Formats: sequence, structure tokens, C-alpha cells
Amino acid sequence: MVYPSKKIQLALGLIFILFISACQNGGNFNKSVDDPLPSWNDGDSKQAIAEFVNAVTDLNSPDYVAPADRIATFDNDGTLWAEQPYYFQLQFALDRVKAMSAGHPEWQKDPLFRAVLENDMKTVLSFGKHGLLKLIMTTHAGMTTDEFSQIVKDWIRSAKHPKTNKLYTEMVYQPMLELLDYLRQNGFKTFIVSGGGIDFMRPWVEEVYGIAPDQVVGSSGKVEFEMRDGQPVLIKLPEINFIDDEEGKPVGIHQYIGKKPIAAFGNSDGDLQMLQWTAAGEGKSLLVYIHHTDAEREWAYDRESPIGRLDKGLDEAMERGWTIVDMKNDWKSIYP
Amino acid sequence: MVYPSKKIQLALGLIFILFISACQNGGNFNKSVDDPLPSWNDGDSKQAIAEFVNAVTDLNSPDYVAPADRIATFDNDGTLWAEQPYYFQLQFALDRVKAMSAGHPEWQKDPLFRAVLENDMKTVLSFGKHGLLKLIMTTHAGMTTDEFSQIVKDWIRSAKHPKTNKLYTEMVYQPMLELLDYLRQNGFKTFIVSGGGIDFMRPWVEEVYGIAPDQVVGSSGKVEFEMRDGQPVLIKLPEINFIDDEEGKPVGIHQYIGKKPIAAFGNSDGDLQMLQWTAAGEGKSLLVYIHHTDAEREWAYDRESPIGRLDKGLDEAMERGWTIVDMKNDWKSIYP
Repeated sequence: MVYPSKKIQLALGLIFILFISACQNGGNFNKSVDDPLPSWNDGDSKQAIAEFVNAVTDLNSPDYVAPADRIATFDNDGTLWAEQPYYFQLQFALDRVKAMSAGHPEWQKDPLFRAVLENDMKTVLSFGKHGLLKLIMTTHAGMTTDEFSQIVKDWIRSAKHPKTNKLYTEMVYQPMLELLDYLRQNGFKTFIVSGGGIDFMRPWVEEVYGIAPDQVVGSSGKVEFEMRDGQPVLIKLPEINFIDDEEGKPVGIHQYIGKKPIAAFGNSDGDLQMLQWTAAGEGKSLLVYIHHTDAEREWAYDRESPIGRLDKGLDEAMERGWTIVDMKNDWKSIYP
Repeated sequence: MVYPSKKIQLALGLIFILFISACQNGGNFNKSVDDPLPSWNDGDSKQAIAEFVNAVTDLNSPDYVAPADRIATFDNDGTLWAEQPYYFQLQFALDRVKAMSAGHPEWQKDPLFRAVLENDMKTVLSFGKHGLLKLIMTTHAGMTTDEFSQIVKDWIRSAKHPKTNKLYTEMVYQPMLELLDYLRQNGFKTFIVSGGGIDFMRPWVEEVYGIAPDQVVGSSGKVEFEMRDGQPVLIKLPEINFIDDEEGKPVGIHQYIGKKPIAAFGNSDGDLQMLQWTAAGEGKSLLVYIHHTDAEREWAYDRESPIGRLDKGLDEAMERGWTIVDMKNDWKSIYP
């Protein structure tokens, strides 16, 4: 009986080792040894990302960072999903104006609203930031937060992009989805830090990006607590609370996250201060600009674009050796 | 050879089951079957907590809640740590006035600041909320966020409570530390939602409560992005950004967390709207008031106390059958 007993011991030992290692992988028995970034072509960008992740996660590396401090922040428009011909949230506001117009006959006399209803985008955009803000305020206030959340959910489930005819959530970037997963698998906490509206993003980003609402930083309007028929509600007011863009991004990061990121990803000058703030941390950091260079599969734009302009940021990125992702050459595919 | 082979099969099967179940527990092989709340006496409060946790985590329960929606919010002052004879952050501000006084000879002519320097708390408190705000603004602004964080860390490491002579972090409530752990072990995400300053709490709550800075909601001042010698800094301004108290708590929960909690814990009327907001959720919720009833081991106060008044909240809690924790009878020990 000696022979089978040794066999048992061996089998038990082997199984023990196998399961221990599986448990250390968070119980993931099928942990893939494949490339975690399959939609990224080999090259400087992919290499910079992998080297950074290895450096901050390797206990023996001088650049090791404890999991609690592995904070990565991502702009949304133009970084995680597309933003042309204009921000998708503006498309949402335009659609809302149309949906609400029956109850607002006075809009026919307002040149801005009339232009929206007549699909005259040239005139709409001629009103500049002030006009856009008016559209946002009109369509993003005057209801409870729960009601607004439902409106966003209904829109995002059905509205289609005028050029691609895809759902907007089908215009997220596949390589960035892989990057989010890759970072989280390496103990990073991933945050959105976007100029977009926080109440516009939260209803869908958890499902699409795997980012929980409390890890979304964005622009916001004021809300007010009220009792309606004995039930508490929060009313969205037509008043700006916070603009999470440019100098606002480090402010938003401080107020919401409370730690300096060690990795930051953006695509426009509006992200420059976030990257500067991240670069000013004590240890190693990863600073990445997504450069829209692919006119065929997506859009090509940078220094002259009214949406997502990348000019000062591009100069600073080149000067300081930050990672500039060339969408055309670095990405095998754009959308999922 | 049939007999040992069956033995092997049996052993393998058993081990497989053991390890699978260990893996499902997050690889925790030594998962204690002991009471997760050893500092809580058996009674209604402990039972209400355990029943709620079982109901929302049991896949077969009609009250099951997915982990992503298991949000629990905790007030800090009087709920996670003590708050008498006055908020610890006020003690911090008083200590800062003293530390900064050498550079401010003009304070000798200001009745409020002179009272602080002369330890005349009766006069200090006679200035009311306006006076306290002035002390907070003076001591919490005019430096970078990093500098302020360091000042808080130095203070919390050394300052002692005037009555107990303990470090302030030794005046956190042991039963609540166990409760935080117990909820997290059951897939809850735990948040602080406090009227206290967000920049005052964040430097130490991660170590003391296991709550990361991005899960801290609180009152805040405005901050401004600035370049100093080519380095970006955030300057704390003497201007209120947000007061996270009373009606502000549901607002803060919305702006920072973006989901309605399913469990909320407070101790004063300042927490009432947070509990109402949580109770208004669709599924099962747990609403808990910590009632300070232990004059011997801590302090006994409620309806008449200027600090941490619990009056309207106590009425509503009794009326609606919320859980009221009787510190004297429900807690075996107070501090760790």
C-alpha cells in the first residue's frame, strides 16, 4: 500500500499548489496568459504602458506603488469614446429640446431653440459656449435626479450617431476598454475625470466601462433636497455647481478622489492640467495623450479642432516625453 | 487497487470542494466562524444589523442586492468617533490658532482669537456658528492642499483629548470598526458622509477606518489650481464650497456617490435627511441611529445637546421603527 499512498500525497500536494495559486489570482482559474491589450499594436505606446504597470506593481521595483495608491484617471469625450462632430452630450441636449418642444411653443420665437428644432447646427453653434450652456441648462434641470437618470438611460439605449448610425455606447474605444481592464487587474482604481456632466455619465458608465458611479468625476449642476408628498427627492436646478475642465480637473480630482493619480489619460488641452497634476506626483507616473490621427476609421483632428482641441497639450507632451497614442498606428481596432 | 483509487477520488473531491469554497471566500482559508461583531451585545440592534446583511446578501432572498449596489454611508462625528465636549476638528482649529499666533500679533486685538489664545472656551462658543466658521477659514486656508494634509497628519499623530488624554484616533468606536469590516466582508462599499471637513478627514481615515479618501464625502472649501515655480499646486481658499450637513447630506451623496445607499448610520439631527433619503430607496434598507446613552464610558446626550443634537431624528426613528443603538446596553466596549 506504500505506492498508492505516495501517489495520494503527490496528487494532494500538486492540487494544493494549483488551488493556492488560483486563489491568489482571485479565484480566476482560467487566468489568461495572453496579451492583455490585444487591440494595441506593438510599439512605443503599448510598451510604455506595460513598462509602467510592471514597474509600479513589482514588489521588487524601486517604483513600486501600494494598490491603495494606484489611481488612474481617464477623460471621457475623445479618450474613452468618440466626440465628433460634437460632444455626444450636446446631441443628447438637442434631442431633448426636440422631445420637449411640444410643451414649449415659445421656443419657436427663440432663435437658438428654433435653430435646434430646424436642425440648423451652423446657427446653433454660432451661439458659442453661452448657447450650449443654455441648451444644457434647459434640458438638464427642472426634474428630479431619478427622472433625469431615466431620461438618459432611455436615450443611450436608443439614440444613434448621425454619421456611423451606431449606438453611442458602441462608439467607445475597444483598446481603452482593454486598458481599463488591464489596469484594474493590476490593482488600479480607475476613475473618469471628464468635462461632461456627472449625471449624464453615471447612468451608463458602470455597465459600459466597469466604472462605478462614485468613481466618476465630472461637471455638475446644483441639486436641492425637497420633500414631495412625504418622499424626499433631489431637484436638478439650472445652476452650475462645478465645471470639471482644464484647471477644474485637478480641483475635481482633489475634491472627489483626494489622492494624486499616478496615471492620467486625456486627448485635449482640457486635460493638460490633469496630466501636469499627475506628473507632479512623487513617484513614477504615466501620462498619455490619445491623438486622433485616423480620418478613415474615426476622425483626424488636433490643433485646429473646435471640439477636443489638442494644441498646447501636444507641445507639452512632446517636450516632456509623455506617451502620445497614435490612433491610426497604435490601435488595431477602434470600436468593439 | 480499486480501494485506494476510490480513496484518491474521494480525497480529491473533498479537497476540491474545500478549496473552491475557500476561493469563493476571497482566498481566506482562516475565515472565522466567530461572531463578526464581538463588541456588540446580543439584542435588537445587533439582530437588526445581522438580519439586514443576511437578507441583502443571500442570493435566494427576495431582498437580495447586487454587490455593486451595497452602499453604506456613515456619519463621522458621534457615529464613528466621539464628538464631545466639541467636534475634534474644532479642537484642531483651536490648536492651529495657537500654533500660528506668533505670526499674527493682530489677533491679540480680536476678541474671538484672544479668547482662543486664553483658552476661554465660553467666550469662543459665544460667537456661535459665525465664530467657528471664522476659526475654520483662518486655519484651513492659505496653504496648499499638500501642506494642509501634512499639518493634519502631524496633529492627529500627537494631539490628545483634554478629558480622556487619548489620541483622537483612539476615540473611534470599536463596535463601529467591527461593523465597517463586517459590511465590507459582505461586499458593501463603505462611505463616510460627514459634516466635517473632507480635507481634515482624508489624511487619516484610510488607516483608521479602512475607508479610502475617494469614499469620504464631507464639507469643503474651494481650492484653486496654480503654477508655482513651474510646479502645479492647489491652494486652499477661505471660501465655502459645500456644507455636507442636514439637507446637504443627500446632496453630497448624490454628487459624490451617485447611488442611493441601502444602509445609513448617524447620530444626530444633521443625519436625518441622509436616513430619510436612504429609507426612500426601492428595496430593503437599514437605518441606524447611534444614541449616546453612556455617561460613564463616554457621554450621554441627545435632545438638548448643542453638539450632536438628536431630537427630531429620535422622534422619527421611533415612529418609523429605525434601529436605535443604545451605546450603554448594546456595546460591550466603546474604544479599541
